[in-house]
Amino acid sequence: MEVENTFKQWKKQCLNKIDFSKKGSVDEDITNIVSVLNDSEKYFTTSSCSGRIIVIDGVSDCLDVQKQNCSWLFVTHQKCQKTDLVTALERSCGDVIFKFEPFILHVQCRQLGDAQLLHSVAVESGFRNSGITVGKKGKIIMAVRSTHCLEVPLSRKGQVLVSSDYIEFLVEVANQKMIENLRRIERFFECLQSAMHHEDLHCTSSEAVKEKSVYKRRRKRTQDSPVEACQSSNDATLSDEDNGLQNGMDLFT
Amino acid sequence: MEVENTFKQWKKQCLNKIDFSKKGSVDEDITNIVSVLNDSEKYFTTSSCSGRIIVIDGVSDCLDVQKQNCSWLFVTHQKCQKTDLVTALERSCGDVIFKFEPFILHVQCRQLGDAQLLHSVAVESGFRNSGITVGKKGKIIMAVRSTHCLEVPLSRKGQVLVSSDYIEFLVEVANQKMIENLRRIERFFECLQSAMHHEDLHCTSSEAVKEKSVYKRRRKRTQDSPVEACQSSNDATLSDEDNGLQNGMDLFT
Repeated sequence: MEVENTFKQWKKQCLNKIDFSKKGSVDEDITNIVSVLNDSEKYFTTSSCSGRIIVIDGVSDCLDVQKQNCSWLFVTHQKCQKTDLVTALERSCGDVIFKFEPFILHVQCRQLGDAQLLHSVAVESGFRNSGITVGKKGKIIMAVRSTHCLEVPLSRKGQVLVSSDYIEFLVEVANQKMIENLRRIERFFECLQSAMHHEDLHCTSSEAVKEKSVYKRRRKRTQDSPVEACQSSNDATLSDEDNGLQNGMDLFT
Repeated sequence: MEVENTFKQWKKQCLNKIDFSKKGSVDEDITNIVSVLNDSEKYFTTSSCSGRIIVIDGVSDCLDVQKQNCSWLFVTHQKCQKTDLVTALERSCGDVIFKFEPFILHVQCRQLGDAQLLHSVAVESGFRNSGITVGKKGKIIMAVRSTHCLEVPLSRKGQVLVSSDYIEFLVEVANQKMIENLRRIERFFECLQSAMHHEDLHCTSSEAVKEKSVYKRRRKRTQDSPVEACQSSNDATLSDEDNGLQNGMDLFT
């Protein structure tokens, strides 16, 4: 009961906070996913992005692209056009990097079984780098992630190192990835609804059986506990592959 | 006890298996990490790669780079040279993609606390996309992952779309990422040793205190259980940031 109350408090605090992201609101293509999760007593979202194509202007000789050393020349959560990239490059005098980043979502979960259910939905939808974090104070976070990306350096110290044809080609490749990303988001939403509906039915029927069992136990101690039936559905969909039993180079499929 | 025995059996089976990866052996730069983990009763590795620079030849119009549709033109787990890339491009007549992929490791863990310890080591070392999977049959896998990557399309249907200067620049960028990757691997190894040593000390001292406590309990029930002191060190190093409490666009730092 204490765990439940703590989770409810965390959820209330989080959902009441101001959205401090640069955009300030949930991305359109995932508002349905975010709503379904936040409407459930088992979950709440802590951060999200539907996926994006970005052009970053970095400081030269900066080993890593860290936000504090970079400015954002362009960003879209949909497909982009060649002119977007050309315009961004014209505005730069540093090291420009073009990136595609897929859907990412962090969800705090009430208990481990809830996180497992969500994890299996994520992996089934193509977000194969998803994983669970169990932090101090018992916070359980499921992160939806994927390796489906692009990262292409385009200029150095303001000098563009690629041709106009290459830029056109790159835009096409990035847009294909965005289309695939949006397809996977739709699949995630369908799988999520299905899994949560299935879970609710299971729990409802196990509640009903449990009531009967309680009645029976008063008369006769022969009925097994139905709770296990409900819990097993949380991790039923994970495969051996997802348990990391592949070796070496198969990891990157 | 049953869980312990099951874990020991899984470990024995896994470590006795033939390595079916293309390389057939553990990468040199991580043999120390793999050894330390496999020597511990709490862990065993199921797959690993120290990081690599690869050139893949894909089938044109293939939306995703799937292994079954691609051939590997070049791979190294160290830095590469311009000639490697040029030679690889000459051998292709499809869609060539140049990639840098960082260190990745899958470790099966005896219990959740062990996974949490390893997770904190991974995040502290810069592998911020690491996460835990809890699968069916109770398998707990901690995956060490990072977003530190490159993915650059270079040709289409055999036609190279970038200049020689760009190839040289790209090789330099990839090599910088490889240097950073190897630095993080070293850090991971140091953090791992430190965390495991600290964990052993804690458990040893809690065992010693426990013996004293048992003695005291026979006389007087006043001593609190020291087991909690040992367990708390497993998740002491995770920060709020790692619990996914950032919003929107801060995710990609």
